[in-house]
Formats: sequence, C-alpha cells, structure tokens
Amino acid sequence: MVKQQTITVKTAGRGSLEISASINECVSNSGIVQGLCNIFIQHTSASLMLCENADATVLSDLETYMGHLVPDGDAMFQHDAEGPDDMPAHIRSILTAGSLTIPVSEGYCMLGTWQGIFLWEHRQQAHIRKIIVTVYGE
Amino acid sequence: MVKQQTITVKTAGRGSLEISASINECVSNSGIVQGLCNIFIQHTSASLMLCENADATVLSDLETYMGHLVPDGDAMFQHDAEGPDDMPAHIRSILTAGSLTIPVSEGYCMLGTWQGIFLWEHRQQAHIRKIIVTVYGE
Amino acid sequence: MVKQQTITVKTAGRGSLEISASINECVSNSGIVQGLCNIFIQHTSASLMLCENADATVLSDLETYMGHLVPDGDAMFQHDAEGPDDMPAHIRSILTAGSLTIPVSEGYCMLGTWQGIFLWEHRQQAHIRKIIVTVYGE
Repeated sequence: MVKQQTITVKTAGRGSLEISASINECVSNSGIVQGLCNIFIQHTSASLMLCENADATVLSDLETYMGHLVPDGDAMFQHDAEGPDDMPAHIRSILTAGSLTIPVSEGYCMLGTWQGIFLWEHRQQAHIRKIIVTVYGE
Repeated sequence: MVKQQTITVKTAGRGSLEISASINECVSNSGIVQGLCNIFIQHTSASLMLCENADATVLSDLETYMGHLVPDGDAMFQHDAEGPDDMPAHIRSILTAGSLTIPVSEGYCMLGTWQGIFLWEHRQQAHIRKIIVTVYGE
Repeated sequence: MVKQQTITVKTAGRGSLEISASINECVSNSGIVQGLCNIFIQHTSASLMLCENADATVLSDLETYMGHLVPDGDAMFQHDAEGPDDMPAHIRSILTAGSLTIPVSEGYCMLGTWQGIFLWEHRQQAHIRKIIVTVYGE
C-alpha cells in the first residue's frame, strides 16, 4: 500500500521549524501501521533534517554555525540573482537533506526520544514550501 | 512491485552532471505509476545531489565552494594513495548523498520546478560510475 | 513484504564502526531477496555514512577533518550542557546522514566493491546506539 500527500509549510524566513506532528498526521491519515515514511522537499533553498528538539539553543547554534560555514554574500559566489543568500541557500540545502526516510511502527514515525523532523528555511525571506509525504507498508 | 535497474554514467572528471532524464526513463521502464524511486551510487568518491538546474553558475559556485571547504592535497590528509584529490573525494561524498529517495506520481519523479537530480564526480579524472535505480509502488 | 528489526551498537566513544555485516544479517533474517533496506538511527549525536572500507587512514582522516570543520568547545556554541562535544555532535550528525536506503538483490545490500555502511559516534564517551533496519520487497 502506498499513500501520498502534499503538505505546505509557511516559513518566516531563515530558521528551522519542527514538522514532526504534521508528518505523523500524514502517517495516521494513511492508515498504514508498519512500514516507512518518505519526506521530500520540492525546493533547493530549503531542506530537511533530523535534530534534537528539546533545547532551543541547538537550533540557534545551528544557525550561527551555518552562517560561518557558508557566509552570505561571500565574494566567491557568482550566483546572486536573488540576493546574497541565494547561493548559500543552495549550498546549505545540499549539505543537509532533501529527502528523509523514517521507519513507521504502530502508526507513528519511530523517532528517538529527543529526535524531531525539521524543515530548514535557508532564504532570509518568508516562503511557502511544499513537502511530499509518501507512506508505504501494511 | 519492485523494479531494479543499473545505469552507468561516464564522467569527464570533477564536476556535476544532471541525470534527471535517465532516472525518469528508469521510472518509465518500470511501469510503476505511483510510489518511490531510490537512487544509489556504488562509489565513495562520487555522490548524488538534488540541486537547482536552471543557472549554470550554481554548479560552478558549488565547485568553488567545495574546493575551499575540502582542499585537495591538504597536509592533514594521510590517505593520498590515488593522489591529492583521493581523501577530499571521500569527504565530499560523505557531506553530500550516496542514496536519494524521490516520490513518483503519474510515472514521473515529483521534482520541484527548478530541481534536478545530479551525479557529482569528486575525482579529478574521468570515471565510469554505477547507479542502481529501484522503483517500487503500484 | 515489510520486516523491521532493531539492532543496538556499543560504541567506544568518538569514531566510526563498520556495520555492513550486521545490516546484511538483518536482510538475510528478513527473507526478502529483492527490494530495499532502510537504516535509521534514533539519535542526534551519532550518524550513518557510506564510506570506503579498505584503508584505515580514510577513517582517521575523516576524524581529523571533522575535528577541524566543527571544533569541540568553540566559543560560538551555547548548547554545551553535556560538554564541549555536545553541539558539535549534533552538527556532525546533521552534515552526514541519519537515514540511508540501500538496494537489496539476491538477499544482500548492493554495496560497491570498497563501500561499507558505518555508524559514526560523534560523542567523546561510549554510548549504546539503536538502529532500526526496515527491509521491504519480495
């Protein structure tokens, strides 16, 4: 059995948002109890990640770190049609994940105790992001 | 239903090549209309990525950036049996992806408007790379 | 057909361990001959990777590199409740992979000749890590 749904997430500009509850709702809607859940983001300037979801400083430290690793407006980048965060947003997406596959059991994603699923908006401006959730199994 | 095919891609040395059309051909050959497509590269010095496929400067900026992030011939690397790009090629592969899973609907990969699937050759020399494409669904 | 198993791996602190044999044992136990094998780690300070498994200097170079890329105890990190390696362990996990999907044929993971599946412990202390292995196919 395969069930596919599209969800949209409104971001408030650069930063990460936990989407675990929305993904588990898709799993629940699918009626699938055991199997896998694939999450795919249809963009190249926002990405997905699995991250600790208990302490907010993890997310702020992540932003600080990525800002150092891939500096906005760096002189090495030619691709800046949409601004100084254009090429960094593509690189940040490639260094993280565009597609995640998570085991499903008893109708839920089998996340660890402090593990959440996040959408990471890499552009400075707010965007509407489309995510395709495919649940398959029994 | 599960359908597995192996495709080979000839690279011209370091750089990225769009393979979206080849992957969609595998999906079409499989006869599967809705489900998922897994792409797996059987190498540790070339990788896969989802990337913007409209502006060629994105790919050249990516090369420039990766060259800075993981410098060929850096004195910290001991593993250089195959040359100064040997260990950097492994690291670049690990920082990107060896396996991607993409939703399939109406017989096509559900890529975003400006999203392509790329093979990224990390070695300086040309290589022949093997990719296994597994399509499953209904 | 979907078969799910949980395996536990004891780590000896920071470093990577090949788990290809354990994963292939799960595939063998599943009775599934052709399909896919998903590997998911239920932690955010240890991760998974596909890496060259022939020369030990690859793994030591990887440690050296990651130590430079994400320095333990860097002043930019606020999240250090569990020590100077706490936030770096989360970042190292996000830059590598928490979930891998590998094709299965003739009852084995279709790895390349020099390709192994590794668990990468990012914390300095030893830990027990849980990995969920889901095999699906025919």
